[in-house]
Amino acid sequence: MKVIKLEDKFAQFTDQWNPRIVGELNDQHIKIARVQGEFIWHNHAQEDELFMVVKGRLYIDFRDGQTAEINPGELLVVPRGTDHRPHSEGETWIMMIEPQSTVNTGDVESERTRHTLEQI
Amino acid sequence: MKVIKLEDKFAQFTDQWNPRIVGELNDQHIKIARVQGEFIWHNHAQEDELFMVVKGRLYIDFRDGQTAEINPGELLVVPRGTDHRPHSEGETWIMMIEPQSTVNTGDVESERTRHTLEQI
Repeated sequence: MKVIKLEDKFAQFTDQWNPRIVGELNDQHIKIARVQGEFIWHNHAQEDELFMVVKGRLYIDFRDGQTAEINPGELLVVPRGTDHRPHSEGETWIMMIEPQSTVNTGDVESERTRHTLEQI
Repeated sequence: MKVIKLEDKFAQFTDQWNPRIVGELNDQHIKIARVQGEFIWHNHAQEDELFMVVKGRLYIDFRDGQTAEINPGELLVVPRGTDHRPHSEGETWIMMIEPQSTVNTGDVESERTRHTLEQI
């Protein structure tokens, strides 16, 4: 029964937009990533996606023109099928929980797509 | 698309061992609770349970004699079917993610069982 220490996990890598798997529950993965700058618009047809900020600040744009601002200690669930575009100014550390089937760029294939994630 | 601010949610109640639902994803609930002292031994036959500490320190005992210590920024997933007993010294604020079917006392019915949880 291993406690997951997020700070220690983040210390194991430095690259951005490349999620690592740190745990699992109920057929979902717990993932962490360092992000900075703008990601691409995408959605996940079948998967709700939880975002939690560990450090920094994450913005998520939606097609209706709204932008969610997520700070440390705050969460946002992006419902399945909802187009969204994450971005941040400074480097931001995020945790995500989503079904194991989830691909980071959802319905879009790009150079940022990661089909296989490292488990740390 | 509503950002869940955990501090604000905890400010909405003061009673202990009475989880509130603050969100949902993939047929699971995101719950928060204030806890202090010792809970009962129990398990959840079908549900993995994620514990995250927001404030304070949570201990979880297991039948093999091990005790996990979870501090803020740390997580523990208790796999389905695993007997566990949470406890804390000072008041501790925890977040849990688990299937919507999960009852707080699992396989045990006690005065601490909550079958219906408030959504805040």
